[in-house]
Amino acid sequence: MRFWILGVGAIGSAYLAFLTRAGHDAVGLVRRNPVSEISVSGIWGSFSVPVRTFTKPEEIPFGPDVLILSVKSYDTKEALLSVRDFIPKETLIMVAQNGYGNYETALELFPENPVILSRVIFGAKREKPGSVRITVCADDVVIGDPRGKIPASFLEELAKLFSSAGIPTRHSPDVYKYLIDKLVYNSALNPLGALFEKTYGELAENPKTRELMNEVIKEIFLVIKERNLPSFFKSAEDYTKVFYEKLIPPTASHYPSMLEDIRKGKTEIDALNGAVVRLAHEAGLRVPTNELITRMVKAKELFNLKDAQESLLR
Amino acid sequence: MRFWILGVGAIGSAYLAFLTRAGHDAVGLVRRNPVSEISVSGIWGSFSVPVRTFTKPEEIPFGPDVLILSVKSYDTKEALLSVRDFIPKETLIMVAQNGYGNYETALELFPENPVILSRVIFGAKREKPGSVRITVCADDVVIGDPRGKIPASFLEELAKLFSSAGIPTRHSPDVYKYLIDKLVYNSALNPLGALFEKTYGELAENPKTRELMNEVIKEIFLVIKERNLPSFFKSAEDYTKVFYEKLIPPTASHYPSMLEDIRKGKTEIDALNGAVVRLAHEAGLRVPTNELITRMVKAKELFNLKDAQESLLR
Repeated sequence: MRFWILGVGAIGSAYLAFLTRAGHDAVGLVRRNPVSEISVSGIWGSFSVPVRTFTKPEEIPFGPDVLILSVKSYDTKEALLSVRDFIPKETLIMVAQNGYGNYETALELFPENPVILSRVIFGAKREKPGSVRITVCADDVVIGDPRGKIPASFLEELAKLFSSAGIPTRHSPDVYKYLIDKLVYNSALNPLGALFEKTYGELAENPKTRELMNEVIKEIFLVIKERNLPSFFKSAEDYTKVFYEKLIPPTASHYPSMLEDIRKGKTEIDALNGAVVRLAHEAGLRVPTNELITRMVKAKELFNLKDAQESLLR
Repeated sequence: MRFWILGVGAIGSAYLAFLTRAGHDAVGLVRRNPVSEISVSGIWGSFSVPVRTFTKPEEIPFGPDVLILSVKSYDTKEALLSVRDFIPKETLIMVAQNGYGNYETALELFPENPVILSRVIFGAKREKPGSVRITVCADDVVIGDPRGKIPASFLEELAKLFSSAGIPTRHSPDVYKYLIDKLVYNSALNPLGALFEKTYGELAENPKTRELMNEVIKEIFLVIKERNLPSFFKSAEDYTKVFYEKLIPPTASHYPSMLEDIRKGKTEIDALNGAVVRLAHEAGLRVPTNELITRMVKAKELFNLKDAQESLLR
């Protein structure tokens, strides 16, 4: 199968490197800074592999069977529009991003294509273009078709292909539940970790950030209920228990990637707490904690963006 | 007149130094670290003066005509209780603190004494015990008796005494309005300055922190209206205009003192946004922005307190 990987950040670099190493035709599409080699390090071993990346889709010598969408969520729409003319309606689009709204955007822009969702929950850090470290893996990548149009057998095969290439993956028709539950996790932890510059474990230990996270989770479950979003959890209480007892301990020493992002002045907050706010407002609900946290993150983005621009000018 | 100054932080150090230099009988009461000299620097000139400070009220050789209350607002109750047995009912109590609640606590603990309120709006920074720098003076100190029991002529004289000693002061029966308007100012600027570690000017320039401050102000004016608190401003809109056009520009380069405080793990948030939250809840109002900002400040206090304690243990 031939892969186009749209966005070669941390996750995109991992897909490009592992698929290329496994002998698949895979190319990366980047806005700038093409790379010709990727070095992988971390928990899945170390290797370097020559890769092909392009800045213009018209230069890629083959069309894609699978388009893996791995740009930051604030770039989803623009990135998909930039390749739309080159994507036949048979191409499978695989959304491999964090948060809410990317899958919905892909469906809207590619109404005829098969679109699958994935819940990516391994941690990757792009140390510089062409260098990625796999830091942690909480669970397999889960892929699936929330609309149920694509045969399960095909998705099982695709999962096997990724697993054989070195990225543990399984198929589940419940992929949307996995995504929403990860949205809850990220919305509770990432913005506070980025605002206070603290690890997940530190956020859970401080009774005041714990109160804030409990509020975030409570509000999101109101939205889940009101908007009929899928989740493996029946209530905020059920989720919160698992959150502190099972989910945080293995990642207690980790900082959210949003901390790196906020330092550069741009985060995926609009696909996390910002999306919760939009979903709530459309249903006439108020989610004041998510609202304020979204605003605080945007305020800090702006301060840091200004600092970053000023340091470029010096 | 004989003065006891309860709390020799930045403001208390200034009162103790200026009153002593002017030849008044003034002593400071401190919990620990008595000092025998205070050096003053900054916009009101530089001088050093020998002073008397005590850790126990029973050791002070004279009783007070005036007790100036200048501890941090979270220590008000404990500090007043510690001197109550030594304060005759004729002693004038002068509340010289930030925020809401200190005057009310003084009235409650000293129901028979004359109690005056003051709005202190010069900036002082205690660089170490015995050393204070006067950084800025936005307006005279305003003193007054919100209950109107104390003759205006006496308060005029007292104001003159402070002014002659070097701390520009005037009397106004509207002192409570001054205090509440300063509460609005501090509640809008201080917590965000402490959370983001930014100056007043930077907070006003960033459209996202501006939105947050506008919300804080809007909510406080709801509380002002509902609780019949006095203010020179008719509405949040009137206040907001003056806030950005007149109040911030001269102090644009200043960081709030709450930034120093939050680094040490303890702030006066409960006399500012925290007091707004209490006043709102008692009246059945919701002030979600003030609530969340209060929680964020308390979360950061706890993180920093823990860091400070750990660094002491090392």
